[in-house]
Amino acid sequence: MVDIATRVYNHKWKIDPIVRSLIDTDFYKLLMCQSVFRNKPDTNVTFSLINRSKSIRLADIIDEGALREQLDHMRSLSLSRGESTWLRGNTFYGKRQMFRSDFMEWFEGMRLPPYHLEKRDGQYELTFEGKWHEVMLWEIPALAILMELRSRAVLSDMGRFELQVLYARAMTKVWEKVETLRDLPTLRLADFGTRRRHSFLWQDWCVQAMREGLGEHFVGTSNCLIAMRREMEAIGTNAHELPMVYSALAEDDAALRDAPYKVLADWQDEHEGNLRIILPDTYGTQGFLQGAPDWLAGWTGMRIDSGDPATGAERAIAWWKARGEDPTQKLVIFSDGLDVDKILELQRQFQGRVRVSFGWGTLLTNDFRGLVPNEGLAPFSLVCKAVAANGQPTVKLSDNPNKAMGPKAEVERYKRVFDLDAQEPMDVIV
Amino acid sequence: MVDIATRVYNHKWKIDPIVRSLIDTDFYKLLMCQSVFRNKPDTNVTFSLINRSKSIRLADIIDEGALREQLDHMRSLSLSRGESTWLRGNTFYGKRQMFRSDFMEWFEGMRLPPYHLEKRDGQYELTFEGKWHEVMLWEIPALAILMELRSRAVLSDMGRFELQVLYARAMTKVWEKVETLRDLPTLRLADFGTRRRHSFLWQDWCVQAMREGLGEHFVGTSNCLIAMRREMEAIGTNAHELPMVYSALAEDDAALRDAPYKVLADWQDEHEGNLRIILPDTYGTQGFLQGAPDWLAGWTGMRIDSGDPATGAERAIAWWKARGEDPTQKLVIFSDGLDVDKILELQRQFQGRVRVSFGWGTLLTNDFRGLVPNEGLAPFSLVCKAVAANGQPTVKLSDNPNKAMGPKAEVERYKRVFDLDAQEPMDVIV
Repeated sequence: MVDIATRVYNHKWKIDPIVRSLIDTDFYKLLMCQSVFRNKPDTNVTFSLINRSKSIRLADIIDEGALREQLDHMRSLSLSRGESTWLRGNTFYGKRQMFRSDFMEWFEGMRLPPYHLEKRDGQYELTFEGKWHEVMLWEIPALAILMELRSRAVLSDMGRFELQVLYARAMTKVWEKVETLRDLPTLRLADFGTRRRHSFLWQDWCVQAMREGLGEHFVGTSNCLIAMRREMEAIGTNAHELPMVYSALAEDDAALRDAPYKVLADWQDEHEGNLRIILPDTYGTQGFLQGAPDWLAGWTGMRIDSGDPATGAERAIAWWKARGEDPTQKLVIFSDGLDVDKILELQRQFQGRVRVSFGWGTLLTNDFRGLVPNEGLAPFSLVCKAVAANGQPTVKLSDNPNKAMGPKAEVERYKRVFDLDAQEPMDVIV
Repeated sequence: MVDIATRVYNHKWKIDPIVRSLIDTDFYKLLMCQSVFRNKPDTNVTFSLINRSKSIRLADIIDEGALREQLDHMRSLSLSRGESTWLRGNTFYGKRQMFRSDFMEWFEGMRLPPYHLEKRDGQYELTFEGKWHEVMLWEIPALAILMELRSRAVLSDMGRFELQVLYARAMTKVWEKVETLRDLPTLRLADFGTRRRHSFLWQDWCVQAMREGLGEHFVGTSNCLIAMRREMEAIGTNAHELPMVYSALAEDDAALRDAPYKVLADWQDEHEGNLRIILPDTYGTQGFLQGAPDWLAGWTGMRIDSGDPATGAERAIAWWKARGEDPTQKLVIFSDGLDVDKILELQRQFQGRVRVSFGWGTLLTNDFRGLVPNEGLAPFSLVCKAVAANGQPTVKLSDNPNKAMGPKAEVERYKRVFDLDAQEPMDVIV
């Protein structure tokens, strides 16, 4: 029977919003937001969209009016009562009251700050300026909106059954991954695919399929809204934006050299256990580990997010051993450009030697490769980064020079300060 | 929003009925039913279920109670007003008022007669006895019910996402067939898959996918309910049950020899144009064509339903030529065990030499081969045939001795009367 009232109500939507909740974002954004809110409340930051896949001319594909409508809709959102209750009352990593009252009170009243949008050379220049703890919350929804508008544009001409078969094929692809992965008895895997997902509904489907197919091997999702609705673990710790902004704020080279450790010292004040995960690669993993204070070796694990992942994990194991730690008690989280083959390979190489976990992103929630002509739905490398803090440019080097960003002179300065050796460039898939 | 009333209403269903309409059946059944109603109203006939795939132990797979519930539900159905209006008002093969008033009045009051069900050796013995024009309407729903109960039984243990992926894979399979077939510019293809469909909803999906994917190359469906709801052509002419019953009623060998032609003489009185399709193979095509009266050569086409289809079509073309007819004006309908490769091959071989059309059955609406373990959903050869008429056994020989049926002595008599040469046996897929 047709629910007439629902049909009429639905007519009132001016758009089909892509992001409908402030917690349709990565869990680590909220953890970092609270940390910034506490430690750096007066920092002004600029976030900027960067499309590393120049051949994808987003401004030609996505209508500017549609993009503005979605971004404007984001600015109309506020935390709902149920969302607030969940953040206040839920257990995260076994801990209650992860989010402090002063932070929650601020978050409940928060609206996203304005955005600035221009077209240039077939790309969108999309920037956000303001308080760090506010503009940082734009990153994930801005990316998700652009990714999904691109999906919608590519799919707009397809027939009803053609569309259904497209999704049938995509589902089959995901399920084949499930069928391969469930042969691994010690696998631990989480969804990290919010930012470059094909669409919200598709991410939600993938997460639920993983849960049914992998059972306890699927440990959760980084997406807070999906974690809340599907009663799963919310997963995540911290990201490059912390050392990038802390470094930009450093007043001299000595302070710069110390900045990445200062980030983790602040983090240690707030978090314990599985939240103490080192992300070592912002300015080169090797130098970071050599110069790290001993207390860092006591942390739970390390996330490998650039460079060759096996090399990164071997480096972590060697470092723990050198600092007198038992690597089999430590956690390595792989989170860069993963797909099934790479997961299988890394799992086989490191199981038993270290605790292994995978944060599976784009190729979990957006693998439509080969499903439409000219790879119109293939994932691409879109990021939204802090590019300046209190007027100073940020720099990221990572373990892959193809991911480096920042003004050239500053990049050279950072390379000198962090004593960065020649790096081997790797293709950036996503 | 949840439609509460609908949810509560749905609770009242005792079962999920597989067949919900008397016109969820093949169009030719209704054409033949009208013909029998007019020409043989006093014939008593027995229809019987025959599972030619003995290894599929249906009585072990399908619960007897569930089967009885579905069969009982069938007996509660009557023609709805809209269905009656459609049959009375629709154009079939370009003709209005295909169904006469006296037939429609009878059909509007008709309920299906009782069934008789027993288990034996892991199979169901399911028989229907009564007036021919009544029991004949059991054939298609009985088959569809058994096929779908088998599907339900095999799927009963699967998870929600596992099921969705199963259908995703099946959809992909159907769509790959569409993608292959749409390269054929002169293709004409119809759905003949009601009786051995995976399920009603699946047939409905396949038909709609074919229509979107093949456009005008998809000419319609044999299923009246789907034709009505989807506003498509209903397709079909006549079947073996007419010559089988006419032959069983024959009083001597001379009458027997003449019976298959008598069927078509009665048919010619009623129908013209595209409904004048010869089904020549009931007792061997070769003998049938040799002995056929000249007026039959004027008919529109021939349906090839057993034996090697290319041989059958060549035989038809040669026969038309020998009778002074132009084969390029004639229609050959292939309808036996078709799948994409066979369709491609036959289309290429015969296009331009004769008008070609395909009635695609089981491997359109029930191709789940390779999708579950142990081929639990693979189609199998289930039929429901007239086995006796006024106490006399029926016989079918066809152009494939593996499809022959009837008591041995009668089969020998028919072979003698119809002068049947040695035949080449072929595997019966479906």
